[in-house]
Amino acid sequence: MTATIQDAARGTDTRRPVRFTVTSASVGDSRARTGILDTPHGRVDTPVFMPVGTNATVKALDPDDIREVGARIILSNTYHLALRPGHERIRDLGGLHAFMGWDRAILTDSGGFQVVSLAQQRSIDEDGATFRSHLDGSLQRFTPEHAIAVQEALGADIAVCFDHPVPPHASARSEVADATERTHRWADRCLAAHTRPDQALFGIIQGGLEADLRMASTAFFASRPFDGLCIGGLAGDETPEQRRAVLDVVVPMLVDDPRPRYLMGLGSPMDLLDAVDAGVDMFDSVLPARVARNATLWVPGGKLNLRNARFLDDPRPVQEGCRCRLCRSFSRAYLAHLFRANELLAYRLATCHNLTFTLDFMARIRSAIADGTFPQLTRDLRAQAASRSPIDVVGS
Amino acid sequence: MTATIQDAARGTDTRRPVRFTVTSASVGDSRARTGILDTPHGRVDTPVFMPVGTNATVKALDPDDIREVGARIILSNTYHLALRPGHERIRDLGGLHAFMGWDRAILTDSGGFQVVSLAQQRSIDEDGATFRSHLDGSLQRFTPEHAIAVQEALGADIAVCFDHPVPPHASARSEVADATERTHRWADRCLAAHTRPDQALFGIIQGGLEADLRMASTAFFASRPFDGLCIGGLAGDETPEQRRAVLDVVVPMLVDDPRPRYLMGLGSPMDLLDAVDAGVDMFDSVLPARVARNATLWVPGGKLNLRNARFLDDPRPVQEGCRCRLCRSFSRAYLAHLFRANELLAYRLATCHNLTFTLDFMARIRSAIADGTFPQLTRDLRAQAASRSPIDVVGS
Repeated sequence: MTATIQDAARGTDTRRPVRFTVTSASVGDSRARTGILDTPHGRVDTPVFMPVGTNATVKALDPDDIREVGARIILSNTYHLALRPGHERIRDLGGLHAFMGWDRAILTDSGGFQVVSLAQQRSIDEDGATFRSHLDGSLQRFTPEHAIAVQEALGADIAVCFDHPVPPHASARSEVADATERTHRWADRCLAAHTRPDQALFGIIQGGLEADLRMASTAFFASRPFDGLCIGGLAGDETPEQRRAVLDVVVPMLVDDPRPRYLMGLGSPMDLLDAVDAGVDMFDSVLPARVARNATLWVPGGKLNLRNARFLDDPRPVQEGCRCRLCRSFSRAYLAHLFRANELLAYRLATCHNLTFTLDFMARIRSAIADGTFPQLTRDLRAQAASRSPIDVVGS
Repeated sequence: MTATIQDAARGTDTRRPVRFTVTSASVGDSRARTGILDTPHGRVDTPVFMPVGTNATVKALDPDDIREVGARIILSNTYHLALRPGHERIRDLGGLHAFMGWDRAILTDSGGFQVVSLAQQRSIDEDGATFRSHLDGSLQRFTPEHAIAVQEALGADIAVCFDHPVPPHASARSEVADATERTHRWADRCLAAHTRPDQALFGIIQGGLEADLRMASTAFFASRPFDGLCIGGLAGDETPEQRRAVLDVVVPMLVDDPRPRYLMGLGSPMDLLDAVDAGVDMFDSVLPARVARNATLWVPGGKLNLRNARFLDDPRPVQEGCRCRLCRSFSRAYLAHLFRANELLAYRLATCHNLTFTLDFMARIRSAIADGTFPQLTRDLRAQAASRSPIDVVGS
């Protein structure tokens, strides 16, 4: 099964606000590929990792910091912004880019995941979802049409369909099937509702861990004129093997489809590597920033817990040769001190490092794909990871 | 009474690590003056406001931010750094400048004020002060010699004598007299203990609100070869009139003394203006940064409370024409949103603004003194302040 001509046309249609071009593909068994995503707010090299700015700010960073870590596109959360400060308010203030002072690309998710994972007293019917705000308990209603209206008000470069994700391990097959079919009906309503000509719209493939449901969902979205295809319902409690099995169902069906593939919510470096190998182009996750605020710093081959007392006297940078704001100017000892003193600067510096680490890791992956060494890179990094202790706090 | 030749010689001695030159004086009744303070880490124009970096970080800012707000010198706290991470640790890591990545000037206070105001179970004897750490309850001992050893280990450009401050309204005259005399004995011990040739040492004039005690203390410090003279025991619970009365006792005694005068702990703009008028050259306070973190933004003629709901829709910058990181790129609406969402970026942006406001205010004062318009500036700002409502939340 392959994508229809209609989709292919939309994927490379120069009249669309976002265009994707595959620039190179890996050799051998790998489906890794590089590409260029052109958006109204600049060009993005793929595979790409998008830092998350939930409340119209990437936590602890300002836009100069986000640029400095190397981000070309960030994700912001429709659910959070609709509740606070309100999408109409952001629209009236000039849209999300102006509001948060970010002039590169933005993708907004649809709110579907947050409605399921954050909201209280949730009830989902065919028309939409009713729930109570996690902020103030107020009664809220999201429908596909409302999620699109919110995202058009926010004005991101890329909007995403309102879906009904179901955590695979928490759900019976019938629930997954129902949610997947509802996601398809809602996707068509999102397509019909979406009018903003300077904004792309991505669909979200669901289907849990069931191969046949994933195949049906992939076929459905491949047949619709979305600008890109998200793969939802992963990066949850599934094993890496289960995730890979899903990708090995979905991606081969899209091999001739010219549109970008976006696995929502994945953030650990080895998981990113595996998913790129499986043919995914786009990623987002709060993980690098969240663990940074918890004093966990990512370095080649492992991680450092800066709350460990042995770093209090360590004059070395967190990562030798790292270009980030933390490693350029400060020692492990200073960062360890800042964390112990609960100083705000700790969160910013640690976040700058982990996001720089993640984005530089993606750049290394892109280079390896382009020059034909991605299979070797994958083997090397997997061997390195396998040789690590489970604790994997390394000293240098 | 005037300073002795000995002091004058030290004040302008080119062999001293810090040298002070008065460059212009105001006209009329004002004792305002401009000067240049040359330190091992660069030149400082006075009157100067020093942002406070208690734990080797100006809260929420990194050194690039501190440079951008315009600071040429910051204050850091001996008491806090001795307890955490420890002065010997900082010394072994290359000293305070290297530790915190700040290559401009630093002044460390002596810890005397914190021992009195922060520590628990404090007991002061002739040799020093014993107290329990506010961090972990551990038993600690500060003597004049130890305070100097800590500050030499930290390696600031300017160290300060260990003193025995007494809050004026909380103390009987006999207590103030005893503490002032002890401060003098401790000052001589600090002078004897201080050996670091690349570090200046300032004395602290005490004496509470008692004119005769202040005169005696001023005469004492004027007769000793310190590099500068702090005025301690103010910026507490005294009224502006009481503070001015003390300055009108102290400063006239130093009129021929070539050394800088530093009023410790003062931070509100109108208080700074009055003290400059009374002849003070140097200031520090946590106030601008502390109120910023509490969502109070200083603007010409008043202040804005960004937690007020009316700012949620306000597209204007906090202060039109302000050069700071906040006002260059963001609206009041965005900052109000960040505060409501408890986003870390709020604290950094608000601190950048209030410190820029304060340092630009000092620059305006220096210009006015230099061009002879300081009396007019003082009259204008006092009239503006008098016409404000006590609530003083202004809209533009």
